Amino acid sequence: MSLDPEHDKREQPGPAAGPGRRLSRRHLLLGGAAAGIGAAGAIGVDLVAKTGSGGSAPPPAPLVSGTDTVPFFGVHQAGVDTEAQSRVTFVALNLLADVDRAALRRMMRILTDDAARLTQGEAALADSEPELGVVPARLTVTFGFGPSLVAVAGGLAPGWLKPLPAFTIDRLQPEWNDGDLLLQIAADDPMTVAHATRMLLKDLRSFATVRWVQSGFRRAAGSEKPGTTMRNLFGQVDGTVNPVAGTTDFEALVWDTASGPRWMVGGTGFVLRRISMNLDKWDGLDRSGRESTIGRTLATGAPLTGTRERDEPDFTATTALGFPVIPEFSHLRRARSEDTTQRILRRGYNYDDAPSGGGVSNSGLLFASFQADVDAQFVPIQTRLDTLDLLNEWTTPIGSAVFAIPPGCTMNGYIGDTLF
Amino acid sequence: MSLDPEHDKREQPGPAAGPGRRLSRRHLLLGGAAAGIGAAGAIGVDLVAKTGSGGSAPPPAPLVSGTDTVPFFGVHQAGVDTEAQSRVTFVALNLLADVDRAALRRMMRILTDDAARLTQGEAALADSEPELGVVPARLTVTFGFGPSLVAVAGGLAPGWLKPLPAFTIDRLQPEWNDGDLLLQIAADDPMTVAHATRMLLKDLRSFATVRWVQSGFRRAAGSEKPGTTMRNLFGQVDGTVNPVAGTTDFEALVWDTASGPRWMVGGTGFVLRRISMNLDKWDGLDRSGRESTIGRTLATGAPLTGTRERDEPDFTATTALGFPVIPEFSHLRRARSEDTTQRILRRGYNYDDAPSGGGVSNSGLLFASFQADVDAQFVPIQTRLDTLDLLNEWTTPIGSAVFAIPPGCTMNGYIGDTLF
Ligand code: HEM
Ligand code: HEM
Repeated sequence: MSLDPEHDKREQPGPAAGPGRRLSRRHLLLGGAAAGIGAAGAIGVDLVAKTGSGGSAPPPAPLVSGTDTVPFFGVHQAGVDTEAQSRVTFVALNLLADVDRAALRRMMRILTDDAARLTQGEAALADSEPELGVVPARLTVTFGFGPSLVAVAGGLAPGWLKPLPAFTIDRLQPEWNDGDLLLQIAADDPMTVAHATRMLLKDLRSFATVRWVQSGFRRAAGSEKPGTTMRNLFGQVDGTVNPVAGTTDFEALVWDTASGPRWMVGGTGFVLRRISMNLDKWDGLDRSGRESTIGRTLATGAPLTGTRERDEPDFTATTALGFPVIPEFSHLRRARSEDTTQRILRRGYNYDDAPSGGGVSNSGLLFASFQADVDAQFVPIQTRLDTLDLLNEWTTPIGSAVFAIPPGCTMNGYIGDTLF
Repeated sequence: MSLDPEHDKREQPGPAAGPGRRLSRRHLLLGGAAAGIGAAGAIGVDLVAKTGSGGSAPPPAPLVSGTDTVPFFGVHQAGVDTEAQSRVTFVALNLLADVDRAALRRMMRILTDDAARLTQGEAALADSEPELGVVPARLTVTFGFGPSLVAVAGGLAPGWLKPLPAFTIDRLQPEWNDGDLLLQIAADDPMTVAHATRMLLKDLRSFATVRWVQSGFRRAAGSEKPGTTMRNLFGQVDGTVNPVAGTTDFEALVWDTASGPRWMVGGTGFVLRRISMNLDKWDGLDRSGRESTIGRTLATGAPLTGTRERDEPDFTATTALGFPVIPEFSHLRRARSEDTTQRILRRGYNYDDAPSGGGVSNSGLLFASFQADVDAQFVPIQTRLDTLDLLNEWTTPIGSAVFAIPPGCTMNGYIGDTLF
């Protein structure tokens, strides 16, 4: 039941460099025993069992997925088309009053440099706890710019870079809204997220103050079969219909091409909605009521007219009594438009904070979506859902923020170098 | 970089039963491809790739560690000698005024039943989101009783079951102190912890209200080599010197034998100290200052007189100038007593909450320790550290709670059945 900590305990390997670090978990795990040991050797893990000698079975390869990395540099920032990691921290900051264009440039150079290191499992430049930087666990750091930052930079903001229109369902609490600079810090390990967050916030000390911090989670990496769609805290399969990274569909929906200011080409628009989910009230709804609310089953996430998660919903199918099988006001029906340009990439996380004031839970969804044009893609969906969506009975948006995610950069550049 | 969610996506397997569920991760991963597929079949995971046919390589075995379970029933409660999981939520509750002995019995029967199910990857009895219950991920639920609960039960409390003496370093905030009932809910998956927490808090609605909730983390399971000692947010290797589960040393230090009331035999004492760690101030200290504060190196956790984590510290060694290599007031020196009965099992977690009021971090340690006799084992150590410990400069206890952890129970019993 418990592991003997005296057994086979070696020094913690130092930061490793070289190609070994780029080996994927799959490679490590599935390359067979020999390949596994070779890879582990490359990352500095001592695999030779203390007791090992002679003809006994080779020691089991360790399960070390923390070495997996996602490239930092590229045409696009990472953390958008990256398969969602299990943990996220979103931080929004307010720029200090004296930050000008030159300071922004310095700020983003420092942040880029440290983010690039940390995501590759290296310590930050002035890392005060370098030992905490050795487990990248697919860390990505994604930067976003709010309207004031773009104004300070003297740049042209995309038309959609402003607070969302007020929706009737909104009960926004100012402490969760807006911001000048966004960090999305995501990894499969909470320690990695905590360390990267701290290092980057330290870099920002002389440039900005923290406005809000929101942390969320999905299932741990390895808990389920890779590729399993996440579930939210209502128990629903959440994220089935989503553009698929690498397809032209994804490219068109997510990445900014030429519609707005030049500096945004290769970037995208980001919306974060903090949506509280009333689990207590949801408890009052029976299973079929819950399924009608969404238009999909709880067991598999299949549309009510199908049997498998990815079956196409049939909105024309009717019950014996002549009612649509998928209710007209279900979330599925209302969220989908006939205009196929009105689609978004959802990449949200659950939150489950400490309840206050005698409550049993304080939970919900950090609804996060990426889309090339927030006004053209996100707003029509949210407007439709605002008008009518059965789900509104149990969910309440309490925070809202929009950021421009600039494109990626090369190894010699920095995030934002197309803007200032 | 990202996984195609259209590929090989099947229905989410329903709750699986039978022996497959008990297979360990190691078994799943290391038993070779055939064993892997057999095991995966047993837990209902469909491994046949959609594209698979003919003589191509077998599809990779999935990394599914979420099926690992820890037995619930036994002489002792689980979650004490269990290798620490990566996530924890501690919840303290206040009993409602009308809860009497009979109600306590009902309460603990319901809690025991649901905890037993959830830890084995089964839905709770009235589970409102049964699909969230299928990933046990080594879930343990450990119950603790505060003084008032024992009083309501009409039982004799162990002498040490009371708030700790006031220490001069304490800056306790009442919202983190004490409680009548404790739940320690720990697993390798944050979704599992969230779901179990909610199910158990729902069971408790008519018995108690939430007093406080504290969540913490260590590295994700699989991030590092199994058995690696955790690090705290100061970057220190934290947990090196600890009794080892299964040894007579552990038995003697942790499990209550016959010193106190009969109902506690097989149980243990629990202390939770919420200790804020001032990372900003810690930043001002250089590496050698940090190492002297503890008496161990940051790189490996070795004592300053040794080279490997588990080397015995030599408190007599002196520097060229005649000073002790391990400072007299270092945490290591002060925490260790010559009286070997003054030892405890530390099983703490890091916390990293959202900073408020312009701060960059709100972090620390959920210092959690188990010991048969809190007064005889924990208090002398804390008293010594209170008098003098270099670490006090950077750490502040802001919460404190003591609970009696009753023994485990059989499948026909319930936790607390030795008391009421
Ligand atoms: C707490 C709030 C919300 C919950 C619990 C929720 C849940 C769900 C669920 C269970 C599905 C069906 C499975 C899937 O395709 O993912 C879904 C689909 C969808 N949701 Fe939401 N959702 C929420 C808020 C929103 C918001 C704020 C938007 C956008 C404004 C949105 C847009 C969509 C879209 C576009 C789809 C796919 C529709 C399609 O099939 O074409 N959802 N949501
Ligand atoms: C935030 C507060 C604390 C931090 C950062 C901290 C950190 C550490 C570190 C780094 C070690 C050395 C490695 C190890 O053996 O684990 C250690 C050892 C130890 N600590 Fe702490 N500690 C804290 C609070 C406490 C408290 C409150 C107690 C008990 C009252 C305690 C008791 C011990 C003991 C018994 C040892 C082992 C000493 C030995 O080698 O015999 N610590 N701690």
